[in-house]
Amino acid sequence: VIASIYPEAHVLDLSHAVPHYDIPTGSWMLRNAVTHLPVAVHVAVVDPGVGTARRGIGLACGRGDVLIGPDNGLLLGAAERLDGITLAVELAEPRFRHHPVSHTFHARDIFCPAAAHIARGTPLSEVGPQLAPGDLVLLSETPSVVREGALHTQVATINEFGSLMLSAPGAFLADLGHPAWVRVSVAGQVYPARVVRTFGEAERGERVLLIDSYGQLCLAINQGDLAVGLELERGARPSVIIVAAPSESALRGGEEAL
Amino acid sequence: VIASIYPEAHVLDLSHAVPHYDIPTGSWMLRNAVTHLPVAVHVAVVDPGVGTARRGIGLACGRGDVLIGPDNGLLLGAAERLDGITLAVELAEPRFRHHPVSHTFHARDIFCPAAAHIARGTPLSEVGPQLAPGDLVLLSETPSVVREGALHTQVATINEFGSLMLSAPGAFLADLGHPAWVRVSVAGQVYPARVVRTFGEAERGERVLLIDSYGQLCLAINQGDLAVGLELERGARPSVIIVAAPSESALRGGEEAL
Amino acid sequence: VIASIYPEAHVLDLSHAVPHYDIPTGSWMLRNAVTHLPVAVHVAVVDPGVGTARRGIGLACGRGDVLIGPDNGLLLGAAERLDGITLAVELAEPRFRHHPVSHTFHARDIFCPAAAHIARGTPLSEVGPQLAPGDLVLLSETPSVVREGALHTQVATINEFGSLMLSAPGAFLADLGHPAWVRVSVAGQVYPARVVRTFGEAERGERVLLIDSYGQLCLAINQGDLAVGLELERGARPSVIIVAAPSESALRGGEEAL
Repeated sequence: VIASIYPEAHVLDLSHAVPHYDIPTGSWMLRNAVTHLPVAVHVAVVDPGVGTARRGIGLACGRGDVLIGPDNGLLLGAAERLDGITLAVELAEPRFRHHPVSHTFHARDIFCPAAAHIARGTPLSEVGPQLAPGDLVLLSETPSVVREGALHTQVATINEFGSLMLSAPGAFLADLGHPAWVRVSVAGQVYPARVVRTFGEAERGERVLLIDSYGQLCLAINQGDLAVGLELERGARPSVIIVAAPSESALRGGEEAL
Repeated sequence: VIASIYPEAHVLDLSHAVPHYDIPTGSWMLRNAVTHLPVAVHVAVVDPGVGTARRGIGLACGRGDVLIGPDNGLLLGAAERLDGITLAVELAEPRFRHHPVSHTFHARDIFCPAAAHIARGTPLSEVGPQLAPGDLVLLSETPSVVREGALHTQVATINEFGSLMLSAPGAFLADLGHPAWVRVSVAGQVYPARVVRTFGEAERGERVLLIDSYGQLCLAINQGDLAVGLELERGARPSVIIVAAPSESALRGGEEAL
Repeated sequence: VIASIYPEAHVLDLSHAVPHYDIPTGSWMLRNAVTHLPVAVHVAVVDPGVGTARRGIGLACGRGDVLIGPDNGLLLGAAERLDGITLAVELAEPRFRHHPVSHTFHARDIFCPAAAHIARGTPLSEVGPQLAPGDLVLLSETPSVVREGALHTQVATINEFGSLMLSAPGAFLADLGHPAWVRVSVAGQVYPARVVRTFGEAERGERVLLIDSYGQLCLAINQGDLAVGLELERGARPSVIIVAAPSESALRGGEEAL
């Protein structure tokens, strides 16, 4: 559809691996990718679940990018990384849609046509009526915080290796005093984890806490699948509590105490 | 291989998700995609099963496109959507093959080289001897028909959500009198389904009949997997009978009667 | 990242289907693909397992290509097919990295930035200090050999159909006397296999030996999954012994004798 409207468009495929209906994972992928991309028109879609009223939206961002997709929270994390929203519109103008507009394939009929027209030069403001950014649908996300020495955070997404990507940035390690070991409480289980900079510092099968390549905290098993071990399905987003431990032996002795 | 022959070629990857050996699904994807693509040379392959004699063919179409692939029925639905076949040839000319030609990787050695040469300007008629369109291999497909108030049709393909995409166009809903509820008979089971325009009109887990984004009828479960529920494997193409029902309660009372 | 550094770059995605940590399969895919590609800068990565000290390397090859990736054996088979290494360097120069360099995402921070700069014209020699090719990490691979009438070889990779791609080139069939039937010993099992040129010559479900589309020997089941039948997981690389058999009946009689 894009090639039909704007044959010279340079289209990059970022990922087709977002699990069905999993908006938080889509949001996580998008916000971690956009800052590494040139200024562009970015289209993102996660298969919709319930709710017919989901609008298509376009968000112009401070860096110069335009984000295109559904009004379901998917785009807002990326907009924040691209220096915030300068203009939000609803993709309502029939001239910039693919007809007939289907009820179930908005990527083809609404999002991609709008993106192609904007990439070709149509100003975002012509693609539909302006929206107040405060009226956009938000993803519910518990803010990460350190309270009484314990980091309270949440799983942002589980990646294809079964690692738990947390919503807390890596800077929280400093708030915990840069521990070498931590106790992790997640999904009804408590276990010790070693704090490493890279998987290569851990034994095969060892449970670790590290800063991932997006600068966020991440719980994992070296060459294993932590999500399977915890019986977490992809799409699960449980709360996580992390406390520093002075040493591995202290940890093992105090495992019941957490 | 295409880049070696024609470095300036603009190559779009449509899908690598056709299940092995599943020609009907490949045909379904291709015919639903080509009308949204610019006029182009389209290459399609489904992993071959039995039969060594499968020819490579090129089909020039009324809209101006050329279809390239195996002579196994994969291309004919798309050719119909592109205003029919104006010239069919066998891809036999050695100059437009990649040598040595392997026995098992025709996409690399026959289809893509031919496509690249044609995209670069070689007339299709030079790529091999002309074939009579009537000699091409057809996909067996039962035509959809309404008989005594019942729509008789067939599953064209099962998509990745487990929805059953039927070979009957959405216009058949009018022949059934635009019912709000229907009784569906498929794979030895009979069940009521609600007719909706979009998944958002249905409850989570509700079985529905809707017109999909390609304008065809589709049986599904909202946010569920109908194929798993019916114990249908991908690639299965059972017959389907659909009758209008006056109301949900009438349906439930008459479930045994179908 | 490449588009940010070199927007005009023509990027081809070869595959995202290498199983995690499976360097032999990555090596096999890459070496079989590069000879069909135009002269280019090729980037390859397989998710790393243990070991932090893995260097990033760039290999200039005789044909004019540059290979970029980790120093774990992944690139060497491809370099051989591209007429050997003419210059090897470590990707150490900070100017050609993406900052901050993460510990876990070298594709983004080291390999792709280096590739983009080289494609845009930076000489490989400026991207880091020269390495001796003899110091590069090798993949362990048993050489294929015919001894006393038996071909001793190894599974190079198992493909997505469950076929066993061997490291022995097809020319070894001549050393076995171009047999019509062979006895195969692999993973603790011994079975007869028919030597065919194409799957179409075999019955559905028949076990075969053929020359694959890369010119290598391949063990398979026509329309079946040999790896599942042998209880081999993807990534397994067992030894294989193949001997000629005069006929199917001789084979069946002598099955215990192998």
